Amino acid sequence: MSGYNKVTPEIIDQLKAVIAPNRVLTGEDINDDFTHDEMSIYGKSTPEVVIDATTTEEVAAAMKIAYDNNIPVTPRGAGTGLVGACVPLAGGMVINTTKMNHILGYDLDNFVVHVECGVLLNDLAEDCVSRGLMYPPDPGEKFATLGGNVSTNAGGMRACKYGATREFVRAMKVVLPTGEIVNFGSTVSKSSSGYSLLNLMIGAEGTLGIITEITLKVIPAPREVISLVIPFESLEDCVSTVPKFKINKLDPQALEFMEKAIVQKSERYIGKSVYPQVLDGVEANAYLLVTFDGNNMEQLENIIEEASEIALDNGAIDVLVADTPAKIKDAWAARSSFLEAIKAETNWKDGLELLDESDVVVPLNKIAEYVEFVYKVGKELGLTVESFGHAGDGNLHIYSIGNDKVSVEEFKASAKKFFDTIYPKATELGGLVSGEHAIGSGKLDYLAESVGETQMEIMRGIKKVFDPKMILNPGKVCYKL
Amino acid sequence: MSGYNKVTPEIIDQLKAVIAPNRVLTGEDINDDFTHDEMSIYGKSTPEVVIDATTTEEVAAAMKIAYDNNIPVTPRGAGTGLVGACVPLAGGMVINTTKMNHILGYDLDNFVVHVECGVLLNDLAEDCVSRGLMYPPDPGEKFATLGGNVSTNAGGMRACKYGATREFVRAMKVVLPTGEIVNFGSTVSKSSSGYSLLNLMIGAEGTLGIITEITLKVIPAPREVISLVIPFESLEDCVSTVPKFKINKLDPQALEFMEKAIVQKSERYIGKSVYPQVLDGVEANAYLLVTFDGNNMEQLENIIEEASEIALDNGAIDVLVADTPAKIKDAWAARSSFLEAIKAETNWKDGLELLDESDVVVPLNKIAEYVEFVYKVGKELGLTVESFGHAGDGNLHIYSIGNDKVSVEEFKASAKKFFDTIYPKATELGGLVSGEHAIGSGKLDYLAESVGETQMEIMRGIKKVFDPKMILNPGKVCYKL
Repeated sequence: MSGYNKVTPEIIDQLKAVIAPNRVLTGEDINDDFTHDEMSIYGKSTPEVVIDATTTEEVAAAMKIAYDNNIPVTPRGAGTGLVGACVPLAGGMVINTTKMNHILGYDLDNFVVHVECGVLLNDLAEDCVSRGLMYPPDPGEKFATLGGNVSTNAGGMRACKYGATREFVRAMKVVLPTGEIVNFGSTVSKSSSGYSLLNLMIGAEGTLGIITEITLKVIPAPREVISLVIPFESLEDCVSTVPKFKINKLDPQALEFMEKAIVQKSERYIGKSVYPQVLDGVEANAYLLVTFDGNNMEQLENIIEEASEIALDNGAIDVLVADTPAKIKDAWAARSSFLEAIKAETNWKDGLELLDESDVVVPLNKIAEYVEFVYKVGKELGLTVESFGHAGDGNLHIYSIGNDKVSVEEFKASAKKFFDTIYPKATELGGLVSGEHAIGSGKLDYLAESVGETQMEIMRGIKKVFDPKMILNPGKVCYKL
Repeated sequence: MSGYNKVTPEIIDQLKAVIAPNRVLTGEDINDDFTHDEMSIYGKSTPEVVIDATTTEEVAAAMKIAYDNNIPVTPRGAGTGLVGACVPLAGGMVINTTKMNHILGYDLDNFVVHVECGVLLNDLAEDCVSRGLMYPPDPGEKFATLGGNVSTNAGGMRACKYGATREFVRAMKVVLPTGEIVNFGSTVSKSSSGYSLLNLMIGAEGTLGIITEITLKVIPAPREVISLVIPFESLEDCVSTVPKFKINKLDPQALEFMEKAIVQKSERYIGKSVYPQVLDGVEANAYLLVTFDGNNMEQLENIIEEASEIALDNGAIDVLVADTPAKIKDAWAARSSFLEAIKAETNWKDGLELLDESDVVVPLNKIAEYVEFVYKVGKELGLTVESFGHAGDGNLHIYSIGNDKVSVEEFKASAKKFFDTIYPKATELGGLVSGEHAIGSGKLDYLAESVGETQMEIMRGIKKVFDPKMILNPGKVCYKL
């Protein structure tokens, strides 16, 4: 992708003519945050200019200037990604959307909400709750932008029952790489009106266009919620219990599995212990955290009874019921802090965190086999491996962590060996490279290996249709710089 | 699209070398059915050769021969479409998939079923029911193939609660226009693994590739189902009641509206009268047909009570409860026969049926305004207009019907005026051209008008990426012949 131009003072002047000058940042005014996301191991890169956009029209105006001048553009939300998708690998312009953070309005005849792309998930979730509504997608990272959630098809805890972000996106306003503004989709729930450009944008990581406004489906909030913490002596019993809830016609809202080491690390991080370590002399080595929701407590109590029987029949040591908001919050606090807890105990070298992760998704009945394989490979490579995951949809987060004795290069080399082994295994078991974190620059080779050259070539062709100059978020998903 | 070659005897020989000769049909062996779909007004066209494919490999082999020889290819399921999508406009080859009709197996750990593309919806639905499962998508036409359902993102009655076909497609095997076989998606429910080629294929009407196998999500069948027939004196009260069920946290499985004329026509057709015409001296002019499902009859009875109150508060004359399988079947029988009933009373001229339809989808709170507008326009044009629809998702089927006094050309001209007026109105109200019938050749101009040239150009670009020789299903969706 040679042939990009540098951002000249003339281009800065053009930008400042259409966007307030104090929102066109250059040089030392650019915060270091804009050089990386939450997984620094994929490298840092500094943009030449950062635009703090406040409207779709500003995004379009900046994009048009970049298009006319062949400047690479990287759209950015809250920067909470884990695959380097918002890192401006080719320099150029970063369009920061976090100031586009307004909830534009609810339409309860059609059960949708219109938002700007920079609204934080947490803000929408809380606003919905205050209105008796629920926006079901619930990724671990609550402070991502909704534009980022849509661009990665974020999944999260409640995808188990409600589906990932894709199933809640009805329409969007998009700035194309030419600077043209288009609308994809509509408020309505059904469409058979040509190729679904809407669905193509979902999970495209800002490489085909910049999503500036979104119409999202919401649902009436369920009236009752209960969580269960279920400790198991063996990891295998724990994960093999997962598909049995659904087979028995229970429909958990969330179904997470976690192993002992990560729970303890997280409890150290939050300074509170909720998960029992030993029960009746039996040591807990793995846990399920299950949430059920419904509109009727009696019905929910029957479900809890059935779920408990299923778990105990499958080797659970006990079933702990969290049936008040405070208890549910405690049960989920440890889970919600896994990534922060891992990061708190991870070593840094040369300004980079010795941490890498994979986000594979495998069929539910392959989770046990896959997790066992992953730990075996990690052990052989002398790597610290930690894993947790959305067991209810086979989505596993697996971390490789460097110790303080290795260099960045040694860590990268052993992490590469680890992932070179565990990614193909996920594909072999009928899974996919990423359930919800996406591809960015970090997983591009693994995607190519998993889907093959024909599909990569189709993706590159689609990229060129949207972005003939290849200026939008270069080096991501399917195109290497 | 000039430059296509004719199917020569040499090409027939090549085809018969890879596919059993009795399944390579030419000349008078080609049934007239292969020249049209269920909406003959969009014209007929005869293929030069029909392949009765039985495997993905046969589809791939035939496609490869077509690719090498620049022969246009039209994939075809059961031919139940309503927009001409399976009509071989450029002649050439039709690949008939109806012999690929095997349910390949269920995977209940992951709650999916693997099917060949030619399995009929009705066959899968019945097979699921016999196993205590449900495949939720439920279009009016039960004898379409699942490949056709996926290729149009078919919606149907139960999309109101469960979503359209898109939400049930996990993976597919696809023969590309080159003859190469690829797999999109996976058994798993979450994915953020590159551009979603899976979702691009859904609703692409066989223009990007030929879907040969599909992995579909199924769910445990709800234990209890109840339907309500709700007559109204005024059409306006009827449709304005629609959004109120959801606002009141009820969640109907299906929610259909129908006006008197079409109900009476359908009851004549099936020879059975279920819908009350006069109650307590008040004439019923429109009806809602609502179904609720759940796992607990007590809970369902509460829902019925709430729903009845809502309907009566909004001007319903009465609420009739169908709470046995026989009564539910009766209530739905008239609805299920609407299209056949209209067709039974429609005039034919010159081998063409004087019938055209639109399948717009509008926001729920615009249904009343839209329906009123449509009847007004029809009246001004002297056309017989009939309408019914999936009110619960704003999807309206509107038929214009010619009388025995008009010629084909006169009918086409007035139908064109009608649709030229009512399509832009749907877009103006925030709707889309098609909810579930798709674009085919019949609605291409209306799609272009609705989404604009930029989006049509993107679609044509995507088409070229998949099909550089433009041989697959030419003249459909975004490309005119």
